[in-house]
Amino acid sequence: MNAEKIPDIIIGRLPVYLRALQRLSDKGIQTTSSQELGEIVGISAAQIRKDISQFGEFGKQGTGYSIPFLIERLKDILKVDRVWDVVIVGMGDIGHALARYQGFANRGFNIRMLFDNDPKKVGQKVGNFEILDMTVMADYLKQNKIKIAMLTVPATAAQEVAEQLVKAGVRAILNYAPISLSVPKGVKVQHIDPAIHLQRMTYYLD
Amino acid sequence: MNAEKIPDIIIGRLPVYLRALQRLSDKGIQTTSSQELGEIVGISAAQIRKDISQFGEFGKQGTGYSIPFLIERLKDILKVDRVWDVVIVGMGDIGHALARYQGFANRGFNIRMLFDNDPKKVGQKVGNFEILDMTVMADYLKQNKIKIAMLTVPATAAQEVAEQLVKAGVRAILNYAPISLSVPKGVKVQHIDPAIHLQRMTYYLD
Repeated sequence: MNAEKIPDIIIGRLPVYLRALQRLSDKGIQTTSSQELGEIVGISAAQIRKDISQFGEFGKQGTGYSIPFLIERLKDILKVDRVWDVVIVGMGDIGHALARYQGFANRGFNIRMLFDNDPKKVGQKVGNFEILDMTVMADYLKQNKIKIAMLTVPATAAQEVAEQLVKAGVRAILNYAPISLSVPKGVKVQHIDPAIHLQRMTYYLD
Repeated sequence: MNAEKIPDIIIGRLPVYLRALQRLSDKGIQTTSSQELGEIVGISAAQIRKDISQFGEFGKQGTGYSIPFLIERLKDILKVDRVWDVVIVGMGDIGHALARYQGFANRGFNIRMLFDNDPKKVGQKVGNFEILDMTVMADYLKQNKIKIAMLTVPATAAQEVAEQLVKAGVRAILNYAPISLSVPKGVKVQHIDPAIHLQRMTYYLD
């Protein structure tokens, strides 16, 4: 399997399939079909079969997919069969919300450290974590080989902090600031942008 | 143009194009190509041409797209050539962050009211808004013909509150709770799920 050969748009759909499958599994359901999965995620059954078939032979005609098997394969493909340490940089409202977020459990991520540059915040506790000073961030990230950061600093600081993260070895940034980050090739950025999701829905409103 | 005929997956890409075009426009750039746009958004130029051609004839071979014209058309298609009132339900960390978020400006949305059911929060001010009691929510939503809500209550309350919103006339919900909402046909739900975005990036990590 070669990472270069699978279009990013397919990769982008796999976590959505995985989430749907994990929810079916949580309900005790053992098998599903591309039709059922398609209705849950809002993607055509044909597209789902095509996407999944990129990674091998998963289902038999007429018997559907084994959910535990497909979950295992998708976790393996997406590399969330392991647990990745993640840091949060910027402990404003969103940073606090992410530090307490219940949606990462069993999905491959472990919040490891929180950073801020505000002396009033540094040393405060959020859950089990003490907020660390950004002056020590680069060293801590390197020592702990952290590859993933959630960036929740103000828009005006985001590009500069992103550069510090990349310099310290971070290779994937989930950006909450309402700006585009410019990063070197090989560093991945995903953007959480509520307006994009709202605009996707207004199309259907009267 | 018939809303039923355009696949939802294309609709989902249009806000991403619009954001990229608005950023080019902010820099004073007047024309672009499907190649340039594709590099910005990470989608193939062929796909972009195909998506945009669904809505009519936009660019001439060799001269590219007029950015102001394409922005205007996309805003029209996505119905963000107007301003939609949006309410936030649940004034925890995420609710506060959204109430102060700078990324909605000029993108079709206006935060109109904030709700919570916690007596300690009701009456508090966040920016220019006073947090309102959820007991009056249904009436206020109906009186003001609110169609869009951002749902930032705890996961345990999300389904029940979503049902109240739908009953009060809401037709589009941006759900921050880490659960699937079940809503009647005709109501749109989008889900903000940071784990999905992280999983899309781990695929590319070593």
